[in-house]
Amino acid sequence: MNDLTQSPEMLIAAMAARARQASATLMQASDADKIRGLELAAQALRDRSDAIIRANRQDMDNAAQRGLSGALLDRLRLDADRLEGTAAGVEAVARLSNPLGTVIDETVRPNGLVLQRVRVPLGVIGIIYESRPNVTADAAALCLRAGNAAILRGGSEAIESNRAIHAAMAEGIGAAGLPVDAIQLVPTTDRAAVGAMLRAVGLIDLIVPRGGKSLVARVQEEARVPVLAHLDGMNTTYVHSSADPEMARALVVNAKMRRTGICGATETLLFDAAFPATADVVKALLDAGCAVRGDAAIRAVDPRVSEASDEDWNTEYLDAIVSAAQVSGLDEAIAHIAAHSSHHTDAIIATDTQAAERFLNAVDSAIVMWNASTQFADGGEFGLGAEIGISTGRLHARGPVALEGLTTYKWIVRGTGQTRP
Amino acid sequence: MNDLTQSPEMLIAAMAARARQASATLMQASDADKIRGLELAAQALRDRSDAIIRANRQDMDNAAQRGLSGALLDRLRLDADRLEGTAAGVEAVARLSNPLGTVIDETVRPNGLVLQRVRVPLGVIGIIYESRPNVTADAAALCLRAGNAAILRGGSEAIESNRAIHAAMAEGIGAAGLPVDAIQLVPTTDRAAVGAMLRAVGLIDLIVPRGGKSLVARVQEEARVPVLAHLDGMNTTYVHSSADPEMARALVVNAKMRRTGICGATETLLFDAAFPATADVVKALLDAGCAVRGDAAIRAVDPRVSEASDEDWNTEYLDAIVSAAQVSGLDEAIAHIAAHSSHHTDAIIATDTQAAERFLNAVDSAIVMWNASTQFADGGEFGLGAEIGISTGRLHARGPVALEGLTTYKWIVRGTGQTRP
Repeated sequence: MNDLTQSPEMLIAAMAARARQASATLMQASDADKIRGLELAAQALRDRSDAIIRANRQDMDNAAQRGLSGALLDRLRLDADRLEGTAAGVEAVARLSNPLGTVIDETVRPNGLVLQRVRVPLGVIGIIYESRPNVTADAAALCLRAGNAAILRGGSEAIESNRAIHAAMAEGIGAAGLPVDAIQLVPTTDRAAVGAMLRAVGLIDLIVPRGGKSLVARVQEEARVPVLAHLDGMNTTYVHSSADPEMARALVVNAKMRRTGICGATETLLFDAAFPATADVVKALLDAGCAVRGDAAIRAVDPRVSEASDEDWNTEYLDAIVSAAQVSGLDEAIAHIAAHSSHHTDAIIATDTQAAERFLNAVDSAIVMWNASTQFADGGEFGLGAEIGISTGRLHARGPVALEGLTTYKWIVRGTGQTRP
Repeated sequence: MNDLTQSPEMLIAAMAARARQASATLMQASDADKIRGLELAAQALRDRSDAIIRANRQDMDNAAQRGLSGALLDRLRLDADRLEGTAAGVEAVARLSNPLGTVIDETVRPNGLVLQRVRVPLGVIGIIYESRPNVTADAAALCLRAGNAAILRGGSEAIESNRAIHAAMAEGIGAAGLPVDAIQLVPTTDRAAVGAMLRAVGLIDLIVPRGGKSLVARVQEEARVPVLAHLDGMNTTYVHSSADPEMARALVVNAKMRRTGICGATETLLFDAAFPATADVVKALLDAGCAVRGDAAIRAVDPRVSEASDEDWNTEYLDAIVSAAQVSGLDEAIAHIAAHSSHHTDAIIATDTQAAERFLNAVDSAIVMWNASTQFADGGEFGLGAEIGISTGRLHARGPVALEGLTTYKWIVRGTGQTRP
């Protein structure tokens, strides 16, 4: 189907044209067919597990020869358990509620016209990801369930695994009578194909990068197609003067230390000057193995606190390190967050309802929290089922994005012959 | 405030920084203050009408000397009536319902966390427009009511009028205690400032071009900031075999001829081969003064029908001209629209409900209509009040965009000390 001698632009344009055709077919497909397609795809992943794991072994061997790091090899590796998890993930997407066809609102005009806004698929979605081959199945399942065609571009180190997983997904959706072009894998490892996807305005409706910061940064920098992503999770937890000391200690330690490598981890702490238990909270963090980089006031509470540089207030550590400052009150906390936050997730700990509500209103981030750990910033924890990603952009979808974020709406107008006067 | 010796990039960055600050203040302002600001702005437009009309006279004199066309001069011209219309328009925006603070949905998680998605302002919006000076007031009012800061860049031929209108708007919102930087006019007529706005990623959240095709095309081509707009209204009305002939005649003539220059006008007609009254409808159009360019089947019904070229099927005439073809049935009509539509507004005329519903489902346009004139494609006719524009893009907002399209949402999470296990 794909002529690999053509330019990356021609290749992507041809794939996108087939994807658009498939998307038109999908728009008229029933939800039952999509569910069936995903169930059959999950079955095909299980049936083909030997072949998929064999393909993965080939990728692993190549990667080891090329000297890839242990962390990278671990991300690349598939075994029976992980593959079963991937198949179960596809089935979980089949069990989510159907986002399509929902009537968002309805108006009857004085002239009798009946207007509805109805959820419909977005169209053609490009997924650009790195070494985890399970994304081939996860992302494709989410796109398909929302009625979209997906163009998948995984990391070159995972190409054999991705091909094997893609073949299983295509087998499943094909067996349900859905167009196999609804899930296409870019067949080349040529990096220029990524650039062609990013410039495919009008051919691809949305790009979702899944991977590390350098991938997301490149995509956000180069893309002309709209991108749904976040670059940083520069999240702040602010301990208000009214915070319950015990709650503050538990929340701060959890928000920073539960898992330091996730985007919802807290990276900066702000302590109200009038909060009486700052020293307790800082010591609890230090005792939990967290390095604390503080301003003068925070350094004064414990000799283990080192000096924070200007850079620290803008650094997403993704590690057992936190920056911490004292603020004079709510206004200074809000101003600090406005200046340094990446607008992902910011939290206040307070018993004073008025202060908390003012924080929730004034902080302009995708997620704002009161008396909760920033580590909850996750589609699964939000009850959305699988998420395609978290967006810090302000348009279309914000925060955790699941099926609904992969849809748009159209206006349906039903009349009885009305002409406009 | 603005140093005109700085580069366009510096100028726009400085304006955007002040706009962001104003936007933060607006996020905490009450709706009553915004309403009061718009009412005072409308009053200021009336109070300053002499000065505004004087400034407009200066623009008109300059434009006449530069040999601008009569149509352009008419768009530029302000008189007491037009200015009163502008002031009334600002008051009308003040009367729309508040889009902010609406709880889109709420979830209570098993762990007790309460999640809400709440409508909040989008942030900083850039408006790029041409000679009509009323846009300075209209667009600013819509942006402000939705809690946003606006950076306005009008046509150079209208600079004096825009300055005078902007001063009135600023006076009004300032008198209501709102930040005057919420409505800023780009002070230079240097075209490079437009380019700087289009590239101001992260500084300006959304660009809305208001003007002719060449402006919209330039903005869509150059912008790195997301754009809300439509380039073409290549709209089709399809007359199904089951259509009521009398209704078909009335709808087609209205859809094409009521006003030929608006983006909701029908540009292509498709007639089902089995529709018995094609000749009547075509003759009615011809008799109404419309030039018809047809395929062989349509040419056969009246000698006045000329031959359509390939180009005609993709041409938005915005004039008393229509392209017309015969199709074998619903599938061919849907395929024709998929191939040629600009995805603005497409309509079916039919008494067969099943055929109509299949059309409404399968046609992937911002607005799809059944038994109604495509000329209804308008925010006012949709009951939205003033519209900022119509979007054929698929993300964020689609079709007529009013206050809601100038907002986003954030996730508010309220807990009682929950940590993530």
